[in-house]
Amino acid sequence: MLEVQEKAGFIPNVFLTLAHRPDEFRAFFAYHDALMLRESGLSKAEKEMIVVATSGANDCLYCIVAHGAVLRIYAKNPLIAEQVTVNYREAAITDREKAMLAFAVKIAKRSAEIGEADFHELRGHGFSGEDIWDIGAIAALFALSNRMADLTAMRPNEEFYLMGRVPKSK
Amino acid sequence: MLEVQEKAGFIPNVFLTLAHRPDEFRAFFAYHDALMLRESGLSKAEKEMIVVATSGANDCLYCIVAHGAVLRIYAKNPLIAEQVTVNYREAAITDREKAMLAFAVKIAKRSAEIGEADFHELRGHGFSGEDIWDIGAIAALFALSNRMADLTAMRPNEEFYLMGRVPKSK
Amino acid sequence: MLEVQEKAGFIPNVFLTLAHRPDEFRAFFAYHDALMLRESGLSKAEKEMIVVATSGANDCLYCIVAHGAVLRIYAKNPLIAEQVTVNYREAAITDREKAMLAFAVKIAKRSAEIGEADFHELRGHGFSGEDIWDIGAIAALFALSNRMADLTAMRPNEEFYLMGRVPKSK
Amino acid sequence: MLEVQEKAGFIPNVFLTLAHRPDEFRAFFAYHDALMLRESGLSKAEKEMIVVATSGANDCLYCIVAHGAVLRIYAKNPLIAEQVTVNYREAAITDREKAMLAFAVKIAKRSAEIGEADFHELRGHGFSGEDIWDIGAIAALFALSNRMADLTAMRPNEEFYLMGRVPKSK
Amino acid sequence: MLEVQEKAGFIPNVFLTLAHRPDEFRAFFAYHDALMLRESGLSKAEKEMIVVATSGANDCLYCIVAHGAVLRIYAKNPLIAEQVTVNYREAAITDREKAMLAFAVKIAKRSAEIGEADFHELRGHGFSGEDIWDIGAIAALFALSNRMADLTAMRPNEEFYLMGRVPKSK
Amino acid sequence: MLEVQEKAGFIPNVFLTLAHRPDEFRAFFAYHDALMLRESGLSKAEKEMIVVATSGANDCLYCIVAHGAVLRIYAKNPLIAEQVTVNYREAAITDREKAMLAFAVKIAKRSAEIGEADFHELRGHGFSGEDIWDIGAIAALFALSNRMADLTAMRPNEEFYLMGRVPKSK
Repeated sequence: MLEVQEKAGFIPNVFLTLAHRPDEFRAFFAYHDALMLRESGLSKAEKEMIVVATSGANDCLYCIVAHGAVLRIYAKNPLIAEQVTVNYREAAITDREKAMLAFAVKIAKRSAEIGEADFHELRGHGFSGEDIWDIGAIAALFALSNRMADLTAMRPNEEFYLMGRVPKSK
Repeated sequence: MLEVQEKAGFIPNVFLTLAHRPDEFRAFFAYHDALMLRESGLSKAEKEMIVVATSGANDCLYCIVAHGAVLRIYAKNPLIAEQVTVNYREAAITDREKAMLAFAVKIAKRSAEIGEADFHELRGHGFSGEDIWDIGAIAALFALSNRMADLTAMRPNEEFYLMGRVPKSK
Repeated sequence: MLEVQEKAGFIPNVFLTLAHRPDEFRAFFAYHDALMLRESGLSKAEKEMIVVATSGANDCLYCIVAHGAVLRIYAKNPLIAEQVTVNYREAAITDREKAMLAFAVKIAKRSAEIGEADFHELRGHGFSGEDIWDIGAIAALFALSNRMADLTAMRPNEEFYLMGRVPKSK
Repeated sequence: MLEVQEKAGFIPNVFLTLAHRPDEFRAFFAYHDALMLRESGLSKAEKEMIVVATSGANDCLYCIVAHGAVLRIYAKNPLIAEQVTVNYREAAITDREKAMLAFAVKIAKRSAEIGEADFHELRGHGFSGEDIWDIGAIAALFALSNRMADLTAMRPNEEFYLMGRVPKSK
Repeated sequence: MLEVQEKAGFIPNVFLTLAHRPDEFRAFFAYHDALMLRESGLSKAEKEMIVVATSGANDCLYCIVAHGAVLRIYAKNPLIAEQVTVNYREAAITDREKAMLAFAVKIAKRSAEIGEADFHELRGHGFSGEDIWDIGAIAALFALSNRMADLTAMRPNEEFYLMGRVPKSK
Repeated sequence: MLEVQEKAGFIPNVFLTLAHRPDEFRAFFAYHDALMLRESGLSKAEKEMIVVATSGANDCLYCIVAHGAVLRIYAKNPLIAEQVTVNYREAAITDREKAMLAFAVKIAKRSAEIGEADFHELRGHGFSGEDIWDIGAIAALFALSNRMADLTAMRPNEEFYLMGRVPKSK
């Protein structure tokens, strides 16, 4: 996320808002980077799909708009953010990615009902145990992040709305 | 939590489970300590009430049993954990604490609907802006924690079930 | 909607899909035009806000993307579509418009619970009886439209995603 | 519906209520007739079952009572309206009709979740693509109709309650 | 209920079904009679309204049809059963009765959320403590009864559908 | 339940509360004993699991705490009550018992959706028709009991919280 934004030349509001509590700020971004930047069986775009789909399920404006922008850039696809936000079942993504998002949204909304059948389904699509941890942990981290955004009435920077939509200039 | 457990003489399973990913482990506990150990307008027992009530709303066995134990100890009340888990409205706590838990559970379950009326209600009970951050942020952190426990099928250590129930011996 | 699209130079997929049944097609657009084009106490942008907010509540990709484009143009606001789709409570709109959308979403999701208190609230914001019919009837028409889009797996034209986002060129 | 009611000798309240907006009135009944009166793989009684089951799912008094009457007459079955309104799973209808109603109620309540598996299930019961359009489109039309009835507090004519219950006289 | 049915000349299926377990049968009807036949601040018709409204909320065909018949007779109103089943808010009953049914349906669907404000509301409509016990206890008894009907796939006797609809003959 | 409590030497509050209406009291306990004390294919511990799991689904403090105590004693397992209350899927019980509780919770929360597939599943685990009646009827009886506890704000006796937790003394 950071690298994308540095190039974009503005400071995302999540930094300004969370900086109110520096220790929590540092720990949050340490968690974020440990999880989102590590080598993984998931591509960068797939990780952002998880963020956008679960934030969509939670109706979190900041995360949908900010991470929707990052998703468009990583996926090199100007149409994907709305599709994944609104209804991943109709998105132009692979069946494997739909299974990944179904699991992520179940973690987001009814994690107590997760069971062996869910893991079996993911393994059938070729996800390893580490991949499954990544999927679930990203959904879990943005369960926190969505709630902090709502608690602080965090507003997306205007720049995010257009990022990744116009092929070249931006 | 750590200090209580050191005295108790066992390693909570959350440490063993999350240690699978050391970087995420460190960041999680850094966040936990930054939020849960800081000076606050909330007492230690009130913070644990928030953990237990929101984990109850999310049906998370590990967090209910482990933090229920900590809550009994901090509140010096062997009956409070079940009350706050099942239905905080019927718990033997103050009206101020019920308002705190109503807000925390709303963050846990429908944070997109949080609005000015909710903040007004909390301020009417004497909670400051920093207190409100604490309430919401604890609910948000355990939104993450509950999901990680479900993802990893984390099981509560047997010792937790009895901690804080018998006046003296333990 | 039509006039916007004529200028845009493409045929929205809703026309192609519904043309499969010409009689139903004609009746649908007759209803649409009778309701959406009539003189009203609601502005064109407000009518589209109702479409977008209720389609958001129903997770309907086609209607969110197509009518989000129209809303951006009518409101001359490139940011409004995501805000109204995801969480109208956080959108940069007036309190009167938020009350309008609260009623529209209630019609969309739990119309059997509509009662005198809801009408009273709207009248307090200056909405007339005819305005209330417009709000409710637009929510009702798009209850139909969202379901037809889901039934037919209608996909938004790619052009819609960018319309109204870039100040001049488009 | 009209032909039944002409014989019955009274004007259903839906005509009086919607006549307040003549253009919308004409378009609504044009849509209704295009869909409900066309030749179809569904019988007249089956079409009314869809109206009654989805109106039951939406708790719409007018549509349940008015179309329940029509259903009793078309099905020549004085018991069927309550069964289909309350719980189509327990109604004395065929398994094919239960599959039809399961789809219709899914369109009524969670159409964004409709997918290939649902179409497959219907085709397995012998429904054609046109039949599936009919089922979904009737559910969609009465999604509109139920909401207009709630918006206008439309009350069923007293005559409807008894129509089709007593074998001969009526 | 019994006295009505004796006059009607048939044995309601609830007797046949529950007779499979004679001890439970006797206890159930002892409870039913103790609660439903005692002197009360509620009229016989009001008690049956509670049965029908809560059975409607639970989608229980047997109880809706059988007790709907009894309600029509006690209330001498051939239209009331559908109104109370589908949406008590729109029924032609008093505001006091609507408050009674709002409380009963809350007991039926979310009794853990019952609190002092609910009792205050009922007392404001003149209900005594004993009346409130009656309302809640009838909702509770039919929570049991609805579930037994569903468990046993109990079917309403055909006679119930028409009882109390035709002014004189029956 | 009674025999356990006699040994424990205190009067459970349910007796004091329900004694307010002696006829209803007698009928309730007659029903309770007829169902809970009869010879059955379910063990005493399994019957109490049903009580605890459905009371957990209904968030009923009295029944969770009182019957949790009885369950610990019958199952000779100090950990089982929290597990079955919070999430029976994660409890240390057999798959057969998990199927039993899945059915019981479905009766508790959405009994109108019970169908042949549910009975088939139970029979596959070796439950007889009488066993299924027991499972469903216990869930139904405590649907009543949970609601009476909420209606009367029944509080668990303090003794229940510790019963069955400490190996010997009690």
